[in-house]
Amino acid sequence: MALIVQKFGGTSVGGPERVRHVAQIITDTYRQGNDVVVVLSAQGKTTDQLLALAKEYNPKASKRELDQLLSTGEQQSVALAAMCIQGMGFPVVSLNAWQVGFKTNTTYGDARISKIETERIRMELDQHKIVIFTGFQGINRRDDITTLGRGGSDASAVALAAALRADLCQIYTDVDGVYTADPNKVEGARKLDEITYDEMLELATLGAKVLHNCSVEMAKRYNVRLEVLSSFTGNPGTKVKEVVKKMENSHVSGVAKDKDIARLALVGLKNEPGVAFRIFSLLSNRKINVDIILQSIGRDDQKDISFTVSRSDLEQAKALLEERKDTLNYESLEVNDHVAKVSIVGAGMIGSPGVAAKMFEALYDAGININMISTSEIKVSVLVDEMDADRAVQTIHDKFFRDFNRRR
Amino acid sequence: MALIVQKFGGTSVGGPERVRHVAQIITDTYRQGNDVVVVLSAQGKTTDQLLALAKEYNPKASKRELDQLLSTGEQQSVALAAMCIQGMGFPVVSLNAWQVGFKTNTTYGDARISKIETERIRMELDQHKIVIFTGFQGINRRDDITTLGRGGSDASAVALAAALRADLCQIYTDVDGVYTADPNKVEGARKLDEITYDEMLELATLGAKVLHNCSVEMAKRYNVRLEVLSSFTGNPGTKVKEVVKKMENSHVSGVAKDKDIARLALVGLKNEPGVAFRIFSLLSNRKINVDIILQSIGRDDQKDISFTVSRSDLEQAKALLEERKDTLNYESLEVNDHVAKVSIVGAGMIGSPGVAAKMFEALYDAGININMISTSEIKVSVLVDEMDADRAVQTIHDKFFRDFNRRR
Repeated sequence: MALIVQKFGGTSVGGPERVRHVAQIITDTYRQGNDVVVVLSAQGKTTDQLLALAKEYNPKASKRELDQLLSTGEQQSVALAAMCIQGMGFPVVSLNAWQVGFKTNTTYGDARISKIETERIRMELDQHKIVIFTGFQGINRRDDITTLGRGGSDASAVALAAALRADLCQIYTDVDGVYTADPNKVEGARKLDEITYDEMLELATLGAKVLHNCSVEMAKRYNVRLEVLSSFTGNPGTKVKEVVKKMENSHVSGVAKDKDIARLALVGLKNEPGVAFRIFSLLSNRKINVDIILQSIGRDDQKDISFTVSRSDLEQAKALLEERKDTLNYESLEVNDHVAKVSIVGAGMIGSPGVAAKMFEALYDAGININMISTSEIKVSVLVDEMDADRAVQTIHDKFFRDFNRRR
Repeated sequence: MALIVQKFGGTSVGGPERVRHVAQIITDTYRQGNDVVVVLSAQGKTTDQLLALAKEYNPKASKRELDQLLSTGEQQSVALAAMCIQGMGFPVVSLNAWQVGFKTNTTYGDARISKIETERIRMELDQHKIVIFTGFQGINRRDDITTLGRGGSDASAVALAAALRADLCQIYTDVDGVYTADPNKVEGARKLDEITYDEMLELATLGAKVLHNCSVEMAKRYNVRLEVLSSFTGNPGTKVKEVVKKMENSHVSGVAKDKDIARLALVGLKNEPGVAFRIFSLLSNRKINVDIILQSIGRDDQKDISFTVSRSDLEQAKALLEERKDTLNYESLEVNDHVAKVSIVGAGMIGSPGVAAKMFEALYDAGININMISTSEIKVSVLVDEMDADRAVQTIHDKFFRDFNRRR
């Protein structure tokens, strides 16, 4: 017998038919002798509809009142799901953030979880009830309702699993796990049985948007065993944990692509101390996040610095650098937003120097030019032309997973 | 400067246009220097829609989960109204039952208010905020949401006014006050400026459904000054209080009709002690409420007892009495559900013996037969044939208010 937290998103609970299906998954888990705590999002498009409704009353409504309004979506969702499970003959109770004591800071609309009381949930579990809890919301120290921002229900589930020391936190979604590459685009992409938190974090950053990063970070910090799986197929999903058993021969867990990226290059900077500091503190003061940084010694006493930012930050970064041209003392600013980042991720890379080389070889074979390279302990990223990106992912994926696929 | 509680029903807040209108009333009151606490129902048909939605998930859902679901209606209503008032530039905050500490017993779906904490509301008022509170709902000692049943938002408003020792509790509705008779049916009916709690209670019982009885009872018990008025006309309404100034010549405040009534007569009972006791304890054990009772000594050693019940209780009462025919020892049971009760209500009746006689005279002049008569200190009721009821109301109203109307 285990304590399992299950999270279902808005699509999974959109309408009576889908809720009945979800209720089947929940009660199956319960009947296997487990304690079950379920976290639900608002049904379907409810949150968007409530936001549109709010606009009719005040397009500039305070976030405090918006949270008061939005939180009703999850409250309706949990009540309806509980009713459905009651109808199937199981003991169940729906609970809100305030009933549980799910505490956050006071940043309305984008609150951070600060503390979770477990007494009420424990009491209901002791009475052998299935607990259905409202995701996405909490209460602050003023007893006001807060919402958690994007991916909030995932965070609710992971935090609850951590607070309850649950044996497993299952995130049900519309994909049936984490893949070695985007299965809709890359031939031969296959589902991973297991992946480490760090790999998952890198993949999320790289645009394989299965789980929001802060949820994975929280799972890693509190050592919550995660499983990402589909509420539609019923297949086993991908387990996310600290250490995973790797298949022989595979140091790489996945290949990912990120198109939300642009490159800036400052050419002809003076080669003197403090140059990089001045550039990047300027950008970070304006909350512009810089990803890959490359510095090359140029001719004479000059150097170039190039770096990437997300495309939405490009215009602001460009304007900032142009405005400070004299202070920064560079010759020219080059901008390219027709680039993409392609990365391989794998905890197995550490101590396997051949992995990066194998990636570069694949790109060379395909005649794809590498603009920039960046490496971490579990990741190698390259910047390529946007038009080469999909081909780059496929060719790299073939290189690392072809053997495996053939042997199967 | 006063503390005023204002309550608006579902129709008054059905849609952005109406909410803006209500917001105007609220902010006008606030700008006159008053502290304002507003109690709102769910918008328009929201509650009915949520009930229909629940049925799709489980037609026999527990009342606990239904309350969890239904309470979102008022929560949305207060958030949207607060947004609207924000947009008009006034400081405002919406609050739920749990945020205030609006406590009830645990009877889900029909809870009774047990205790109201005032700290949070006082704090918001001290910060000069308009407070918008969810009517119809509370929380019980388990921290579960409860709803108050029919007329619940009125009760919320009166209870809040009592707890806050408010100077006035304004119940906004779709009629602009309490009338001497139903203005849609009785020619010459006019609005009363003032009425006592007791008169209001009698009128409510008699079917003039402006305010639910338990709200009026509560107002009387805690001496809350009520005003019933229209959110559409902007006219002064009717004030409900302990003692009112009466117009000269008028001992009667109103004439009302109740059609939800049926008469039963037990003919040929033995004239011995304990007969009435046996009959009415039998009925009260089955929760059948008896209204008018009339006992007449018949011929020899026999007597008849007739009484009225509400029509929904008629079949059960009849079956009970027939079942016990031998024990009760009566000759025959007569049933009539084509009757109606017509009543005059007025605190001024006490010490004015001519009032009842004047009523009977009116009926005699109109050729209407009186079946039964019942009197209390502030009420005279007669039972007439259902087909005579509307004419009875008009003729009695003419008798008591014609002079007044003429003089005007």
